Amino acid sequence: MIRVPAEPAGRLSEAWRACVGTGRLDLALRRDYQDSLALLQREIGFRRLRGHGLLSDGMGVHRPYEWQGARRTHHSFTYLDQVLDALLATGIRPFLELGFMPREMASGTQTVFWWEGNVTPPADEKEWTRLVRAVLTHLIDRYGLDEVRTWPVEVWNEPDLPPFWQDADEAAYHRLYEATAHTVKEVDAELAVGGPALSPAADGWLERFAAFAERRDVPVDFVSRHAYASGPAQPVPFGTHQTLAPASTLLDQFAQPRKALAGTRLAGLPVHITEFNSSYRPDNLIHDTAFHAAYLAPVVAAGGNHADSFSYWTFSDVFEETGIPTALFHGGFGLLTHRQIRKPTYHLYAFMARMGEERLTRGDDHLVTRHADGRITVLAWALVDPTGETPGPDRHTLRLSLPVGGGGRGEVFVRRSSVDEERGNAYTAWRHMGSPRSPRPGQLDLLHEASEPARGHGRLPVEDGRTDLVLTLARHEITLVELTPVDDETPPWWDERRLLGGEAA
Amino acid sequence: MIRVPAEPAGRLSEAWRACVGTGRLDLALRRDYQDSLALLQREIGFRRLRGHGLLSDGMGVHRPYEWQGARRTHHSFTYLDQVLDALLATGIRPFLELGFMPREMASGTQTVFWWEGNVTPPADEKEWTRLVRAVLTHLIDRYGLDEVRTWPVEVWNEPDLPPFWQDADEAAYHRLYEATAHTVKEVDAELAVGGPALSPAADGWLERFAAFAERRDVPVDFVSRHAYASGPAQPVPFGTHQTLAPASTLLDQFAQPRKALAGTRLAGLPVHITEFNSSYRPDNLIHDTAFHAAYLAPVVAAGGNHADSFSYWTFSDVFEETGIPTALFHGGFGLLTHRQIRKPTYHLYAFMARMGEERLTRGDDHLVTRHADGRITVLAWALVDPTGETPGPDRHTLRLSLPVGGGGRGEVFVRRSSVDEERGNAYTAWRHMGSPRSPRPGQLDLLHEASEPARGHGRLPVEDGRTDLVLTLARHEITLVELTPVDDETPPWWDERRLLGGEAA
Amino acid sequence: MIRVPAEPAGRLSEAWRACVGTGRLDLALRRDYQDSLALLQREIGFRRLRGHGLLSDGMGVHRPYEWQGARRTHHSFTYLDQVLDALLATGIRPFLELGFMPREMASGTQTVFWWEGNVTPPADEKEWTRLVRAVLTHLIDRYGLDEVRTWPVEVWNEPDLPPFWQDADEAAYHRLYEATAHTVKEVDAELAVGGPALSPAADGWLERFAAFAERRDVPVDFVSRHAYASGPAQPVPFGTHQTLAPASTLLDQFAQPRKALAGTRLAGLPVHITEFNSSYRPDNLIHDTAFHAAYLAPVVAAGGNHADSFSYWTFSDVFEETGIPTALFHGGFGLLTHRQIRKPTYHLYAFMARMGEERLTRGDDHLVTRHADGRITVLAWALVDPTGETPGPDRHTLRLSLPVGGGGRGEVFVRRSSVDEERGNAYTAWRHMGSPRSPRPGQLDLLHEASEPARGHGRLPVEDGRTDLVLTLARHEITLVELTPVDDETPPWWDERRLLGGEAA
Amino acid sequence: MIRVPAEPAGRLSEAWRACVGTGRLDLALRRDYQDSLALLQREIGFRRLRGHGLLSDGMGVHRPYEWQGARRTHHSFTYLDQVLDALLATGIRPFLELGFMPREMASGTQTVFWWEGNVTPPADEKEWTRLVRAVLTHLIDRYGLDEVRTWPVEVWNEPDLPPFWQDADEAAYHRLYEATAHTVKEVDAELAVGGPALSPAADGWLERFAAFAERRDVPVDFVSRHAYASGPAQPVPFGTHQTLAPASTLLDQFAQPRKALAGTRLAGLPVHITEFNSSYRPDNLIHDTAFHAAYLAPVVAAGGNHADSFSYWTFSDVFEETGIPTALFHGGFGLLTHRQIRKPTYHLYAFMARMGEERLTRGDDHLVTRHADGRITVLAWALVDPTGETPGPDRHTLRLSLPVGGGGRGEVFVRRSSVDEERGNAYTAWRHMGSPRSPRPGQLDLLHEASEPARGHGRLPVEDGRTDLVLTLARHEITLVELTPVDDETPPWWDERRLLGGEAA
Repeated sequence: MIRVPAEPAGRLSEAWRACVGTGRLDLALRRDYQDSLALLQREIGFRRLRGHGLLSDGMGVHRPYEWQGARRTHHSFTYLDQVLDALLATGIRPFLELGFMPREMASGTQTVFWWEGNVTPPADEKEWTRLVRAVLTHLIDRYGLDEVRTWPVEVWNEPDLPPFWQDADEAAYHRLYEATAHTVKEVDAELAVGGPALSPAADGWLERFAAFAERRDVPVDFVSRHAYASGPAQPVPFGTHQTLAPASTLLDQFAQPRKALAGTRLAGLPVHITEFNSSYRPDNLIHDTAFHAAYLAPVVAAGGNHADSFSYWTFSDVFEETGIPTALFHGGFGLLTHRQIRKPTYHLYAFMARMGEERLTRGDDHLVTRHADGRITVLAWALVDPTGETPGPDRHTLRLSLPVGGGGRGEVFVRRSSVDEERGNAYTAWRHMGSPRSPRPGQLDLLHEASEPARGHGRLPVEDGRTDLVLTLARHEITLVELTPVDDETPPWWDERRLLGGEAA
Repeated sequence: MIRVPAEPAGRLSEAWRACVGTGRLDLALRRDYQDSLALLQREIGFRRLRGHGLLSDGMGVHRPYEWQGARRTHHSFTYLDQVLDALLATGIRPFLELGFMPREMASGTQTVFWWEGNVTPPADEKEWTRLVRAVLTHLIDRYGLDEVRTWPVEVWNEPDLPPFWQDADEAAYHRLYEATAHTVKEVDAELAVGGPALSPAADGWLERFAAFAERRDVPVDFVSRHAYASGPAQPVPFGTHQTLAPASTLLDQFAQPRKALAGTRLAGLPVHITEFNSSYRPDNLIHDTAFHAAYLAPVVAAGGNHADSFSYWTFSDVFEETGIPTALFHGGFGLLTHRQIRKPTYHLYAFMARMGEERLTRGDDHLVTRHADGRITVLAWALVDPTGETPGPDRHTLRLSLPVGGGGRGEVFVRRSSVDEERGNAYTAWRHMGSPRSPRPGQLDLLHEASEPARGHGRLPVEDGRTDLVLTLARHEITLVELTPVDDETPPWWDERRLLGGEAA
Repeated sequence: MIRVPAEPAGRLSEAWRACVGTGRLDLALRRDYQDSLALLQREIGFRRLRGHGLLSDGMGVHRPYEWQGARRTHHSFTYLDQVLDALLATGIRPFLELGFMPREMASGTQTVFWWEGNVTPPADEKEWTRLVRAVLTHLIDRYGLDEVRTWPVEVWNEPDLPPFWQDADEAAYHRLYEATAHTVKEVDAELAVGGPALSPAADGWLERFAAFAERRDVPVDFVSRHAYASGPAQPVPFGTHQTLAPASTLLDQFAQPRKALAGTRLAGLPVHITEFNSSYRPDNLIHDTAFHAAYLAPVVAAGGNHADSFSYWTFSDVFEETGIPTALFHGGFGLLTHRQIRKPTYHLYAFMARMGEERLTRGDDHLVTRHADGRITVLAWALVDPTGETPGPDRHTLRLSLPVGGGGRGEVFVRRSSVDEERGNAYTAWRHMGSPRSPRPGQLDLLHEASEPARGHGRLPVEDGRTDLVLTLARHEITLVELTPVDDETPPWWDERRLLGGEAA
Repeated sequence: MIRVPAEPAGRLSEAWRACVGTGRLDLALRRDYQDSLALLQREIGFRRLRGHGLLSDGMGVHRPYEWQGARRTHHSFTYLDQVLDALLATGIRPFLELGFMPREMASGTQTVFWWEGNVTPPADEKEWTRLVRAVLTHLIDRYGLDEVRTWPVEVWNEPDLPPFWQDADEAAYHRLYEATAHTVKEVDAELAVGGPALSPAADGWLERFAAFAERRDVPVDFVSRHAYASGPAQPVPFGTHQTLAPASTLLDQFAQPRKALAGTRLAGLPVHITEFNSSYRPDNLIHDTAFHAAYLAPVVAAGGNHADSFSYWTFSDVFEETGIPTALFHGGFGLLTHRQIRKPTYHLYAFMARMGEERLTRGDDHLVTRHADGRITVLAWALVDPTGETPGPDRHTLRLSLPVGGGGRGEVFVRRSSVDEERGNAYTAWRHMGSPRSPRPGQLDLLHEASEPARGHGRLPVEDGRTDLVLTLARHEITLVELTPVDDETPPWWDERRLLGGEAA
């Protein structure tokens, strides 16, 4: 029996919901995307949203034209405004990522993704900084300076990988960063600019970025990198298998920037993990499973110890990097599938959103918090075997002694919500149905039902202000338990035994 | 193992959803009422709605005034139109019940209910028939003759009970009926008029109504009565306990009019049970329980054998006959509580709404149907002990061999929805919470969650076109099982064993 | 030409929207009421809502019962919570009026209104104060102390009129007030309690209330009275004609408490005009006219000079004091009719809601304000003849020189919204249609369209930072003019003359 | 005075709303698109929707892959199902256009539009017919055979133009058509297949298509062509100017197929004008003007004489053929702008949707119809000068003697809705505002208001069952007048003169 202390260990960090990822920004014009985001914000409430493609051609911002014999540029905000209006209407703010290169400004033709984002440096750095300036100025104009100052500005994405930045040319990235950062600060000195948005493989880049920033006296308000835990891709048609490292690897990656930057001028800056997930592939079915929720639970519960934000990549399967998905469940990154079916990992976040402000304790398989009104909430998760050698333990039991208030006796009302291989698991239901690639309306209704966590409720006794909670978890279960002291309003004349079908006295 | 035949025994009667009851009609102006009705219609889809008070003062129809020294009457439809517009907008039609007496037309002052419906004959029968004529003429004007011809017109409510009709004066009722029925037919000969809307205790009334109708040659297009199964009321503050007769008593009551009228001029007319329930008290908590759903399941499943409609009294706890409810769960008749929490009996109806058009078989504890597309649906229920001597059996098992199509092999996808003492049971959750009379928003959310049936899914093998289904039911469980042949789209390259956390080969 | 100063005369008082009236509170359960309130709050945004009947039997709060041989009382909040949840969900707070007397606590049987509010003192003052305490304690419990402290508590309604308080017994009112005020303060010393909610006819009551409060040292946090401008009622069936005093009479009534209380202990307290309107009759068609909007415009524009709030009685025709309305337009108090058609006076308030924070000037026929972003808004109104001797002037012209910003040249975009006898006037359209008492859906659509103000737009030149605005108003017109400096984005290559159908060069 | 006959000349053809055009089908995933379509369907109610790109890569249907060393193809319906579900949910059906060529099936690389639709023949005709078969089979599977049989299938788009079909190769088109048509009929013989979807410039193509169909005995169920009236494009940055031929040119084009096919095997087949508009450019501001509505009014009113459908190209500015629009008003084809502002031509269609079933008469400047309930509706329009030499007449007057029912006297209620250069004209308001390319929320609200037609109402006398209507139209006005006999419910005691502010007796 673990005796959970009544004194809080601290506040529960909000890093877990500080940011979430998205497919390219013009997807935000879609209805499924917007409905998904509205659901997400009602039930979870992320603070910021980061995605690629803000400056790519699908957003239509950079628009050169000829007039009176000269080439000129119009900066157009038709879609950018529609996208940001939609985001802000759901209560989420952008985490701006500047990229990719507009085709007509690019120095080369290399692209990334099915939707062909150009990943080459600008042909003319001035044209790029004019674009950056025009975008930021317009945003301040439309949304107000106070608002835009809360939107971090990140320069490019994973410049250490050749597919994302031509030749992974580090010097070219530093040049781009320097020009961009100065432009951002010229627009408004309080705008926060940062980078370098490194992939997990970027050995030494961060240290050299710090040295460059110091040497050139370049503004850096935050540093960013990504975290993934998967091994090499083993492709099948429209899919990928991969091995996974233990989840703790992700926490190590979250922690790496603070370590790497200790002693540099960038030490102490906010660290944003601007992407993380198990696998970096949008076609690995692991993303759709209960295993995935249990695998990530300790990361989501403890990540705030290591970074100021860690942004789940991504909130929705409305995403097209490797092409248009060919089946409802296709291993997309999304917390939600197309048409808004909630995956187990969605519930991990929804459970987190119901935790209290005070953190009482955290263990290998649990996190215990208290709300301002005294309610205790427990998030617990089964242990998983990421090696794939075993399916993981069938059963896992926790025993917690919880301080539910006062020193007295009485009872607590207990409500439990669970997701595992069978419950709250639309993927399993979909497999049972025969894996229909494009389900009919009746099948979609059923999948929505199947995605609902199992709910249970009951009462437990309180003694000396404590309740003993014994939780048995099924394989790959994540569970949320909420305990509320019972204030019984049953009138004195009520005798449940007189109700037909009630338990005999 | 019960071998369910592949050949249908007939069509599943729609009598179960032909009508549902409601509190007095001006309650239909309320938002909670309208939201409840919209939910009901989305998930169940009743055809007609019958309630008291169409002509009572709360509807403001009969409006005498003085002008130029004379007393005149205006018939006003401000609220009647608002009520009917709202009903029709949800796809439900009225089953018109003419009553009670407008105060300023009444011959006496006796009233029924907290809201004081006047139950005395008209002081001037002509004023009454002018009112009836004005109402029907207006309805035809506004909604069209074709539409209004589908709305049955019932004359008064339970005239055999002194609280509902002064002195239970049978001759006076016959006079009222006669004048009213002729007026209805004068408005349009194809309007359907009927009565006498008797209570269960009305010995001999129906036979005498038939004799009267024959003797006076009075139009009667349908006959109506009510059915209840409860014993005498044992009051507690704001509540009532009662014994219940076995559910078969209700079926006997449904069947009584056809028997009583055999050989009379009214033989063969449609029979409408315009109210039924277990207890006739709106403050008996039995209405809120899983026991109630299991108790009524055989009635709802088989009632169509005996009557053309049987109208559950009532769809919502928005109802004020004995006063304004003092707690969320207060034993109201409603399928839904205030604020739209679904009770177990609601789910009984929602399960019925998912049954197929073809009835394959019906037993003491099950009903099996088939949809046009071949899906098989099974409604099963636990047996209950209505004596209150035992809580009823803990477990109940059914074994069914189901014809799921063709003669072949393969698998069916099985989806099961269950409601019992713990699952799909907001009342139990509310008791666990401490019976909060007026729950807070967070508690209401939880009760909505707790009211959701438990869902399960899986696969069963098919041999020779049959699946063996073994169902174990918990105490007071009602369950819906839907079976769909699996058409497996899993691609040939997919190997579930390669998914991390999957079962080892 | 009136030269409007560029320097603000002060902030525009928010007294005009501090409160609005409503029919009895259980009407708030209705859908039409809630939809009306939602519309009102979207377009106007009142802060508080005051209505009768909080403690009357229709709310079901005071519930005596017998148990174990004794009479006891349960305080029940089923409807109170539903009502307040609904109000707060639209962003409006209650202005609590304690009354009328629950029937089973009353000392007599006298009632007021069609819905029979009991207006006699409590039989047992302790039972009354227990009720008050129970209600306030429950509200604090459910909505939080910080929230409830913003809800003023007014004791009773118009005790100076015999229909509202048996015999208009002043001493009995003082006793009720004293017991109630002390109870309120015992619940929480920061709750604001006040009265005496006098009618316009209450000569001397306010001075004697001040003397009583001083003599008995009774808590008083605000004083309240009502204001109406109509003469004696000349009834017709379902309607009333009345003469009206000039609108300035209303401002005089608003100003009366400060004058009357000067020098007393109550001097300097907030003054709330908790009801005002032209006529006090809910069946005077004057409420539905453009005349009414123009008549009240100077009152709404200037009332904040004289009182801290003045509450238009009432926001909706969902109201039943003299019975259920018999026609869509029936002279109800509402800013909105049943089914949410906006009357001209609604638009007066909606125009006020678009005025700026800074008041530049106010005249007999205009009010000019400026928004924080520099936009200028002008509310102007035609002068009316309240004697009925003439229909009022056909045309009225204003000339304003407006400071639209800077000292420069350029143009302003001008947008004008107008309501008069023909435009934005559903009542006139309804008369043209033949005064259909209960309009059909198509007619309702048309009335909604007809209720839309006429809109116009154009440009005016700016010189020396000023624009000359010449407004010609039709009979009974109220108009809102909004002026915004033009920042022209027309590209240099655009030549409107090349557009077919455009004006020739 | 034109004496409109009381006897109908016939039914009003529904050809005007049989179909409407849209940008490429994957735009249907967007929220603005879906919201626009919902508005359109509520207020107009088109029957079918035709757009390009059903088989283009953005829909993700044709998906080749490698497995076990062989190239295979999966046909994927993820987006196609989402698009069609969305269309059908608003009550509109697809008019299927088969095209363009999936990149990985194409014989060449030529593309059309900013979004790069491949316009080359299939490399392997069998792969194409497999695709066609797979799509149709899937649609029947999902939506049912009865439903899909109501969806016409058109083969390709404007094959007579080199940008849309490589080299405008007529023989290659005939081959494609032949293979496709046979495949469609193999899927189901009752599916309707047709073509050749010609541009206005396709001299001789239709006759040769008929000859080919006869010679090769190829199924053809309908013939289709397009109609446009504009001259050569005179570009400016992000825009185009063009001359226009008189509107009658469009009617001539509608009539051309019936003439051309007389005497061929295709004579008598349904003729669908599957695209029409004034200009064929999506960046000609003429589309946004009142001129445009008045110019097209006689075409929309009379087009049904000449063809079975004529499909306005397109319903929304959500359209990207020449790139992403750079300003709210940019000359797009849409009836609606981005964010659903209604253009004058939208109102032309909305007015048509309120016309009656019976056509009484049609003239150069008017169309008169009668509803089943007797209401008379008049659509009238100003005459325009398409040469651009004059702005068109300032005023235009019509005089109509209308048969409003019976032979009696009385009055009619008259309601008029108007759109012209100032009223119902968001484009003019936008110009006044300074042409803001990406308007702020407040500006959008204002534009929505400005797009509302002006409404007026009044009464006219009836003599001998006729009303004389004199309509004066402003420049470029289109107007809808609806006349309803007045059934006056004003009570006998009502005297409007007693209402304050009313007209003196």
